[in-house]
Amino acid sequence: MKPTHIEHIGIAVKDLKQAISYYENVLGLKCYAVEEVKDQKVKTAFFKVGQTKIELLESTDPEGPIGKFIEKKGEGMHHIAFAVENIEQSLKDAENNGIRVIDKIPRKGAEGLEIGFLHPKSTFGVLTELCENKNK
Amino acid sequence: MKPTHIEHIGIAVKDLKQAISYYENVLGLKCYAVEEVKDQKVKTAFFKVGQTKIELLESTDPEGPIGKFIEKKGEGMHHIAFAVENIEQSLKDAENNGIRVIDKIPRKGAEGLEIGFLHPKSTFGVLTELCENKNK
Repeated sequence: MKPTHIEHIGIAVKDLKQAISYYENVLGLKCYAVEEVKDQKVKTAFFKVGQTKIELLESTDPEGPIGKFIEKKGEGMHHIAFAVENIEQSLKDAENNGIRVIDKIPRKGAEGLEIGFLHPKSTFGVLTELCENKNK
Repeated sequence: MKPTHIEHIGIAVKDLKQAISYYENVLGLKCYAVEEVKDQKVKTAFFKVGQTKIELLESTDPEGPIGKFIEKKGEGMHHIAFAVENIEQSLKDAENNGIRVIDKIPRKGAEGLEIGFLHPKSTFGVLTELCENKNK
């Protein structure tokens, strides 16, 4: 595969409202969307900086993936998402390279992207998302 | 301040050589530099993806900042660096906004950039670097 850019960086926060205020008022970025993703048990806020989005993630349930992450590791960077040109092939290539793939076939993510995750145990501790925008 | 893009993402790894192999052979990125930064007690490897660099960091000393980070949190994303246009003013603005600033005035970082860090206790768990390329 050949990623073209970093599509987004996911950051786990305890309090979305306070974190939005920091990203807007201190870093000077503009929050352009707030979205609840019920099946992931998160509320998200999006910012754009150059080619890349910052995706803040607040858990809506302590048993959800972000709730558990914060309990174990605290607030902070949660995952990195690379934009790729052929998500199906990229996931297959990763698997053929011995990488533990969380999603063998792509599924729908936020903003209508096709996404799939690689497991951090195979990727040197970095939960890694691949994504393709088929709508562009 | 107004960051223009994400300059780089720093990722702590235990074994630089193995991690380079993953980033090159699985993700398809090209390592264009390996550099030892003695005062930070790290060996680094750089990759470019779109506007952003991936900076892998292997500790050369368990008592160094990356050695301690890995002991506490394990391998994974360590910091995010935003490119800004006026590093001195950006650090002052952050401080005036009540942010705990690790570097009140900029210092020299890798690749000749002027850099300064914001403390993760003030930035919702994300060790945040600001940097300016004054050589461009």
